[in-house]
Parts: sequence; structure tokens; C-alpha cells
Amino acid sequence: MYPKSIQKLIDLFSRFPTVGPRTAARFVFYLMRLSKEETEELINSISNLKKVVKICHFCFNPFEGEGELCKICTDPSRDRTLLCVVEKETDLITLENTKKYKGLYFILGGTVSSLKKEEIKKLRSEELLGRIKNPEKFGISGSQFKEIIIATNPTTEGEATALYLKRLLKLLNKKITRLGRGLPVGAELEYADEETLGSALEGRK
Amino acid sequence: MYPKSIQKLIDLFSRFPTVGPRTAARFVFYLMRLSKEETEELINSISNLKKVVKICHFCFNPFEGEGELCKICTDPSRDRTLLCVVEKETDLITLENTKKYKGLYFILGGTVSSLKKEEIKKLRSEELLGRIKNPEKFGISGSQFKEIIIATNPTTEGEATALYLKRLLKLLNKKITRLGRGLPVGAELEYADEETLGSALEGRK
Amino acid sequence: MYPKSIQKLIDLFSRFPTVGPRTAARFVFYLMRLSKEETEELINSISNLKKVVKICHFCFNPFEGEGELCKICTDPSRDRTLLCVVEKETDLITLENTKKYKGLYFILGGTVSSLKKEEIKKLRSEELLGRIKNPEKFGISGSQFKEIIIATNPTTEGEATALYLKRLLKLLNKKITRLGRGLPVGAELEYADEETLGSALEGRK
Amino acid sequence: MYPKSIQKLIDLFSRFPTVGPRTAARFVFYLMRLSKEETEELINSISNLKKVVKICHFCFNPFEGEGELCKICTDPSRDRTLLCVVEKETDLITLENTKKYKGLYFILGGTVSSLKKEEIKKLRSEELLGRIKNPEKFGISGSQFKEIIIATNPTTEGEATALYLKRLLKLLNKKITRLGRGLPVGAELEYADEETLGSALEGRK
Repeated sequence: MYPKSIQKLIDLFSRFPTVGPRTAARFVFYLMRLSKEETEELINSISNLKKVVKICHFCFNPFEGEGELCKICTDPSRDRTLLCVVEKETDLITLENTKKYKGLYFILGGTVSSLKKEEIKKLRSEELLGRIKNPEKFGISGSQFKEIIIATNPTTEGEATALYLKRLLKLLNKKITRLGRGLPVGAELEYADEETLGSALEGRK
Repeated sequence: MYPKSIQKLIDLFSRFPTVGPRTAARFVFYLMRLSKEETEELINSISNLKKVVKICHFCFNPFEGEGELCKICTDPSRDRTLLCVVEKETDLITLENTKKYKGLYFILGGTVSSLKKEEIKKLRSEELLGRIKNPEKFGISGSQFKEIIIATNPTTEGEATALYLKRLLKLLNKKITRLGRGLPVGAELEYADEETLGSALEGRK
Repeated sequence: MYPKSIQKLIDLFSRFPTVGPRTAARFVFYLMRLSKEETEELINSISNLKKVVKICHFCFNPFEGEGELCKICTDPSRDRTLLCVVEKETDLITLENTKKYKGLYFILGGTVSSLKKEEIKKLRSEELLGRIKNPEKFGISGSQFKEIIIATNPTTEGEATALYLKRLLKLLNKKITRLGRGLPVGAELEYADEETLGSALEGRK
Repeated sequence: MYPKSIQKLIDLFSRFPTVGPRTAARFVFYLMRLSKEETEELINSISNLKKVVKICHFCFNPFEGEGELCKICTDPSRDRTLLCVVEKETDLITLENTKKYKGLYFILGGTVSSLKKEEIKKLRSEELLGRIKNPEKFGISGSQFKEIIIATNPTTEGEATALYLKRLLKLLNKKITRLGRGLPVGAELEYADEETLGSALEGRK
């Protein structure tokens, strides 16, 4: 339908998260309107990503700079008894923005919707186990984890993943917690589902 | 625009909650298609509402039957140390449906968005005070309230109302609580606001 | 769940167009807050609807006043060679508001989604036929209809109804038209469906 | 907030149409999960776009292949008396998909919301004039344009642009048309605006 090179790039953009063929087409025509310099800037920036960005040896968060650990993992003021397990990088940023969490993180890399072997391989569950048992081995010194917060989404996949991790971490004898359920800002009781409302009643303070 | 009688009824229906002129017009033409018997059934039902339905002497919940108290307030198995203050009748039903609340209720009748005199008069704050101080006077015997849950919505008006009630009830020396804030079922961390997420972190378990 | 009289009225309101149980409950609690006078005003207005409002003998539009015909049908300045067939009363009002239609109307009373006998009985197809063949019999004098606009919605039911009426009216040898299809105000070509766009191309001017 | 290289690419993606910072961040983390080969495939595809894709000398539609004209402009079966002016490339594709347009196209490259000098420069109005007056000069032989369809959106900007073009093309003495206005598929009269409905009445057939 479109000329070959245009269609090729539309197909590649269509794989981006949240992008369908119509938006991908808009991206391609936007790119065609960019100057030669702007296009090179974009290409170099994508290229650079792969070259300059490193993955933190402990928490798997991307970072730039010296060493093997990211800024959070090397920050001496962080609480090394607290580990918060998240699904993806953007969740880590979202939690950091609350300025209410002072512990360390671990990025799981995905969720499981079932307990099929292929799905479980997606998660970094073995890596997580290793880092909880022996943080020193991965560069985190001077402390033992006392509490693991499983901060996956309260969605079907997030819950399934939390259950799977709870079972996995059971023998480590640490305190395992989930983020509190309840009414979000702006909610109306009338439209809240029974489960959320039940949690809000139990979690009242 | 419409014949007088039709326009009159459209105007009356337009005052119903969530109803605008277009929907009110649909209501009127729907009514015109009803048979004489169906119309009388509706008129009698509205008429009956005023005659048969009573307002509970303690909690202000509408009810039918003997006496001055509703089914919940006369139920001996309810926890009479716990009082849950809600904005309106539909909130009471929503909370009862969770089957997780065993105390008594009080229907406030509205919210305040500011502390203007006219607004505050809308609430049944004096009636609430009286019922907490002296429940026996209003038909609730055998107990003292130990905890008051202010279950107004976590909206701007709901919060303003909660603050107002907290100040009002301060001198009574009871435990005052709000429904737990946090992530509702199906939420995604990525899209949660900072306040809700902060509450979810604090309320973790 | 609710007391009997309340539940009864909720059930009756739930039958109103666009109203579900939650909104019906809000209506009932709104009514309970009305004064005795306001409730009587509503009841009288509903009652009055049935007594005072008449159905136009020609076009089936509701009206108030003397005679058997509504204001439009008795208006001598209307174009009696033009008849516009609509699904319901609110469509008639919507078309009148454009101030661009000067002919007469006929309210069909519904649509057919199939050609089942029960469905077809809902429409006033026989009445429509009678009025086109012999308008004088129903109070419209001085003219013959030259064009019949079938102004049912361009939806699946509206189209099915239009087809059915076209077949019915075929032998009368009048000009039969449908409202023009095309792009509505504010539309974007990118999001228009092929059928609408095809009509817009054909109907260009 | 993010490491420098990541933030840089997030900023560049944020300029893409419909993309905000949150989606841009998701794009960047998606890219970081791609393999080296997949990343190179994307970079090459973007690079290739600029090298291989040409802009049609007549209609400004992107294409690949020999010569200076796109497939549509060189197609001998196209109606060379008909020119359809569109805002952007995706509108051309949308109209082609109806299979109901057999003429040639011209891509304007934008719209004007006012008659400010800078805005008008965005449009290819001079190029359009030149191609209508003298199509042979730009590679289109054997015909004179008889009708120009201004197929900009029926939005405020699209209408302003159409008015501007009408004035510009006035002296050329060609038939100027706009796409037909009316009810789109699935519309309901009740919710149609007066302008669209008026057009639907006028355009009835």
C-alpha cells in the first residue's frame, strides 16, 4: 500500500508499545519532514543508547556513568534493609517521584499471567533470589534485607506474579509486603468495586 | 418549543441528578407511550414513597416498617462500638455490600466544599454529635462508640468535609479514622498519582 | 435489598430510557428529599401529560390545544408537497431546529431491525401509506405530496427501516429521498469510515 | 531525572505526533530491550527513508522508484481533469482506499488557522497554483483540470484553509468543490449538530 521503505518503517514502529499502524504512519511522515540534521540527531541518540547506557549489576535499572551500580544502589543514605521489586523501569521512576521510599529496588522485567515455563523465564526470579540471599556478592554491602515489597500492579498479571514470587521467597524468611490497597485520590465510594472497598475498610486509619 | 405541559415535565425531570434537557425529553416521550395503568403505577409509587417510607431516627437511612429505627440500627448482632459516617444513602448500600462492615451508620446528607454557613447547615453535624455523645437517647442501647469512621469520598469536597468533622468531633475523644487510601483493583503504578502511591507505600502489608 | 417501596420505584425508573439501577436509585433518593409540594407538582405534571396532551391526527406529534392537528400541520405556510418521515418525536424537534425544513412530518414510532411481523406492527406504516395517498382524509388539504424524505438514522436499524419503507412506498410513484451522507462538522478524513467518505466524494459541491 | 542519554532520546521522541513524555519513556525502554540487530534494523530503516524515498514532483506524495512522479501521477487510467487537494499524506491514502476517486491529488502540507504570513508560507499554495495553471510543466500531460476538490477537513482550520484556497484559485475559473457534508455512518439525528443536519437536508437524494 505504501512504498516499500515507508511500509517497512511503519511496520517497525507498529511494534512500539501503544503504537498501531495509523500512528506509525504519522510517525513516518513526521520523520520525512525532519531535516537531515534532525534525522541524524535521532539516529545517533538511538545508537548511543546501546553504547553508553549500562544495566545496574544489582537492580537492573539502566544508568550512565562509572562502575557497575546505578546511583540509587551506590547511595549510602538508602535503607539497605528494604527492597522494592517492580515490574519495569517506569514503575521505579514513579515510586522514586513520591519521595516516600528510601530503600533499594529490583526490576523484575515483566509479569507472569500463568505458570508456564516460557513465561517464568521472562522474569529475573533467579537473579532476585541471588541478590536477596547474598547482596554483598552483587556490590551491596553492610546490610541484610529485612523486608521485600512486591510492588507489582494490582492487576491480574501483577497479582499472579506476586503470588509466584511469594512462594519463591518463602524459605528466605523475610517479611514480604504488597502495596496498600484502597481508594485512590478522587474516587467515589459509589463506583468503587467491592474488593477495593473491603481493603479500604480494613486499611482504615 | 414543546407544548406547555410537555415542557413543564421536561423542566421538572431536568432537575433529577444526572439528567439534562435531552434525556428529560426522552423520559417525557417514554411516559407518553405508557398505558394508563403503567402511568398510574408510577404515580402511585412516587406518592407511596412519601407516605410509607420513614427516616431512621438514629442514622437517617430510609426504611419501611414498624418503629423508629431501621433494620441495621435494630440488629442486635451489629457492633455498637463502631460508627461509619457516609455522605449519602447509596454509599451506605455500597459499604453494606462488601459484607465487611459490622458497625452502625450515619448519613450526613451532603458535603461541604467550603466553610460557609449555608453549606454547613446542609450537613447533619449537630445530629451526628448528639448521636455520638448520647446514643441511648436515639434508641441505640448497650454501648458506647469507640471508633468513628469518616467514610466521605477521597475527593476535594469529601476531604473538606472530613476535616470539618474531625475538628467538630475532636473534643469527644473517640478514635477517628478514614477509609484506607491506596491502589484500587486493576490500577497501574505508572498511572497512579503521587499521593495515592505514597499512601499505598505507607499502607503496605 | 432496599425497602419494598423504594425498590419498587427503583425498578420502575430503571425502565426509563438510558436509566440503570444505580441512576434509578439516585432518582429515588432525590425524590425523597423533595418537599410535599414539589412531589405533588411532579405527580400532577405526569398526570396532566396524559389528560391534556393530544396526538396529532396527521403526523402523530404530541400537541396541546384545539382541534385534531398540531401547529405544524395547520400552518398554512408549510410546504405541503414535502413529507419528512422520522423515527421519533425528538428527531422532529431536531430537524425543526435547523430552520431549513419547510414541509410536513410523520412520526413512524420506531424502527425495524428485521422483517419479523411483530416488529413491523410497531411502525405506523399503514397510517403512513394512508396519509400519503389521501392527505385530505386526515385534515391536510390543498396539495399532493411530491417528495417523501425518509429521515431515519443512518444506523443499521434506520437503514433497514428505510429499505422497508422504500419497498412499501414504491407503487405510490413519489420521489423518495434519504438525508445526505457525508462528513459531519469537525470530522477528520483520517478517521472517517470508507462508506461515509465515499458518500462525501459523491456528494461534493 | 533519567540518565542523560535516556533523557535525550525521551525528549526527541516527545516531539513525535501524539507522543508525550510518558509514552516516550516507554519507547526508550522498549528500544533498550531490543537486540543489537533489531536496533540496527530500525536505524537503517530511518536512514533509508531519507535516502530512498522521493517526493513526487507533481503532487508531493512520497514514493519509491524511477522518475520524478509517483505511481498515481503516472497512471494513464487516472482522470486528469480532476484534482483533489488534501492536507497530508495520510488523507491521500484514506481517500484512495474508498476506491471511489479516480483523479489526481495534491498534498498541501498543512492548514492555516489564520491569514498570518508565516502560516501561509507553510502551505504549498504557490506550487498548487502552478500545477493547476500548467500541469504539463510538472509532468502531467494531455489534459486540463476542470474541477478542483478542496478536501481539507471540515474543521475550523480545514475550513479556513478551504476559504483561503478558494480565493486564491478564483481567477483560474475552474469548478471548485468541497467534500459533501452530512450524516456519517452510524450517526443519530438526535445528536447531530444543526449545521451538519442542515447540510444533510440540502444534500438529500
